Parts: sequence; structure tokens; C-alpha cells
Amino acid sequence: MVEPFSASSPQAVVLLSGGIDSATCAALAVRRGFQVHGLTVDYGQTHRVELEAATRIARHLELAGHHFLKLDLRAIARSALLGSEPIPKDRPAEARAGSIPPTYVPARNTILLSLALSLAESIGASDIFLGANVVDYSGYPDCRPEFLAAFEHLANLGTRAAVEGKCRFRVHAPLLFLTKGEIIRLGVACGLDYGLTVSCYDPTADGLSCGRCDSCQIRKKGFAEAGVPDPTPYADT
Amino acid sequence: MVEPFSASSPQAVVLLSGGIDSATCAALAVRRGFQVHGLTVDYGQTHRVELEAATRIARHLELAGHHFLKLDLRAIARSALLGSEPIPKDRPAEARAGSIPPTYVPARNTILLSLALSLAESIGASDIFLGANVVDYSGYPDCRPEFLAAFEHLANLGTRAAVEGKCRFRVHAPLLFLTKGEIIRLGVACGLDYGLTVSCYDPTADGLSCGRCDSCQIRKKGFAEAGVPDPTPYADT
Repeated sequence: MVEPFSASSPQAVVLLSGGIDSATCAALAVRRGFQVHGLTVDYGQTHRVELEAATRIARHLELAGHHFLKLDLRAIARSALLGSEPIPKDRPAEARAGSIPPTYVPARNTILLSLALSLAESIGASDIFLGANVVDYSGYPDCRPEFLAAFEHLANLGTRAAVEGKCRFRVHAPLLFLTKGEIIRLGVACGLDYGLTVSCYDPTADGLSCGRCDSCQIRKKGFAEAGVPDPTPYADT
Repeated sequence: MVEPFSASSPQAVVLLSGGIDSATCAALAVRRGFQVHGLTVDYGQTHRVELEAATRIARHLELAGHHFLKLDLRAIARSALLGSEPIPKDRPAEARAGSIPPTYVPARNTILLSLALSLAESIGASDIFLGANVVDYSGYPDCRPEFLAAFEHLANLGTRAAVEGKCRFRVHAPLLFLTKGEIIRLGVACGLDYGLTVSCYDPTADGLSCGRCDSCQIRKKGFAEAGVPDPTPYADT
């Protein structure tokens, strides 16, 4: 059962997947003075070590709350991330650019934001943080600024709290225009331990990152670009 | 696993709760020539006989598909419909008008529409039907036409199918401005058996409708207004 939260500092909900972007987003929201409630959705993703990572990050950042929700999208949606087709491996950066990858999950960010909105309204939070990024993931339509603005507009039309004038919902995507290297430098400056995060779409049974999926490749490049040692245990090195 | 559906007539997704409005909406979509896929979400509602009703209606209307999804909103949201507070009983119509009732579920229609959108994109459907209605439920912010228009806009920004120009999503709420009596007359004209539907927010253990919650009161009034015999087994009569 969710109880309305009362505290002197403002509440925020952060979508926390366990990867670099959402962890950085949570660290940034904490740094900005919000009482942060993490929301982690187990939507049937094949890379389940992500969920354990989210728990570790929530503890590390001493979040005000961490909510888990199960929603098996495999019943309604198709995606490589849901096991419907193979996860692409060893794709060069050029192949990744400019087209929507098979790891796209239909309407995923619309679903995740709507769940974050429900939690935010229930606990009296006006601010929702999402680690969306257009630089590395230019292919995902639901990471674009016009999509996020449209969701914010929707949130303020479709909720009691907004319609009754009790709050105005804001969707924050502070990493939207940062490169992965810039995101990592920002997180390090906020004291975030990236050894707790997991990016791999297809980890081994032992929990090692494959090193070859799009997400591992972007992660490796990010640490190199940031000039920060990569703490990730990769299976391919 | 969801398979892309191929058929000569267009596909539609209908949110099917098991109540009068969603059943009428499904019957109407079938009548309009769509291959209809029902989507029923078990979101932890206290009135669980609704879910069985949805199955009966899907069979009765011979839908092309019926998808069930479990999503326990009690982990993140508060509402009388989720058991967080009592279901109001015996409220006169004046008390129901003009204010958002405690049965409001934070961001429910945003969540339901986003799930319908995910299913629609996965099966290649462009049309989503929702039994939203402003006449009897003027209090719900996420039943208003401006909310539905904003969702349609969002859907066309945040999905691969729309961004790649393969479809333009449309959100249909054909019952939006009808009274409950008009809705029932429409459904009867489409051959719908309302004995299969359930409206009660707080049914008895035997599955009888309480007859006293807002939803039962609106249902009784609707059948009277339509001049159609009410097939509902009420506990209070």
C-alpha cells in the first residue's frame, strides 16, 4: 500500500532501470534536493540482472523509497528485449545510427511514464525524472524532446492533482542532450558508483556483461570518452 | 507471445473491462468492421468479477483476440477501487456530480491507453477504442476529450510505427457524449447481451451487484432511461 508522503523537501519519482542513465538521473535528482522515490518496472526484459542493480543503486543513493512493479509486456508486445527476436551483437556505430533498433519496445516510455505519473500523483510528487537520451539512442522515438513535452502536457490534463490545481507535473530528462561520456562524468561528480549499474541487454548466466550488444558497446565507449576506468565485468575481455 | 496479425480488415484494440461502456465499445468496433482485439488489465481492482465478465463478452462478440495483462497498481497507487478507502454507497446524483470521486485511480486511463498502444503497435493496429464517457463520469479528468486528443498526439510521436509513417494512431471514444441510456440502446442495436456485463464496484461474495455504489446506481438509471429490462442480479432488490 502506498501512503501519501509528507516531507519538507519536494518529492520526485525517478524511473530506475539499473543502467547508467537512470542511476545518474537518480543521483542528480538527489543532488538537486528532491526526496527521490525510485520506480523499477519488471516488464519481462531478458536482462534481469538490471532489476538487482536497481535495488543496489536505490540503497547506495539512500532513496526515500523504491517501488517495484511487475508488468509482463511479453503478453502484449514484441521486442528483442522481450525475447521475441535475437539481441543484435557487434553492430558498428554506423549500423546503430539513424534507425530504430530491434530492442525498441512498443510504447515503453509511454507506459513507464504513465506508471511514474500514477505513483507521483499518489505520493504527492510533481516531478518525474527519466534518463532518456537522444545522443546514443537517436533511434528511439519515445526519447525525443517533443515526445516528453507531449507527455507532460498529457499528465497535466489527465490527473486529479493537476486538474484541481494542486500541482503541475514536470517531466525532467536532464541527460537528454549529453553524450554517454558526459553522463558518466556528471554521475562521478555526484558520487555515483557505476560499479553498481548494469547496461548489458544479454548478460551471461553468471551475470557478466556480454560486451557485444549495442548497450555494452555504448557503455564501453562512454567510459573511454569520460576517461573513467570501466568497472564492468565483461565476458568478452 | 504476440504475433503480428495479418488480415484483410483493419485491426483495432479495445480496452475491455467487463462493464457496459467497454462492452458496447467493443460491439460497436466489431459492427464497424474491425478485427477487434480486446485488452483486459487486471490492475488489482476490488471488483474482480469484472475480469470474468470481460472473458464472457470477448467470447460473445467473437473477438479476433483477447489479451490479459496483470499489473498490480496497489504497489504504487491509492484509490477506493484498489481498496485504499471505502467504496462510496447510496450517494445521490447531486453528490456524484461535479467532483472527482474516491474511485478515481491515479493516471489509470493514461496507463490503460499506453498498454493498448503497445499492443496496437505490436499487432499492426492503428485504432484504439476506449469506452470513456463524460456524461455520467464528468468527474474523471482522464475521460475528457482534450485528454484523449493529447494521448493520440503522444501516440503518434512516441511509436516506431507512427514515426516511420506506417500508421497514424487514432483513439476512438465513441460513447464520450452519450448518456448511459443511449449507450445501452446502441449496444442492444448491435446485438450485445448486457446480462454478460458487470458494473458493480463492490459485488458480494456470490457475485451479486451491490446496487448501491455509484456504478450500480448509474447502471440502474441507464436501463430505466433506455426502456430496456435490467438483467442485473442486485443484492439490494
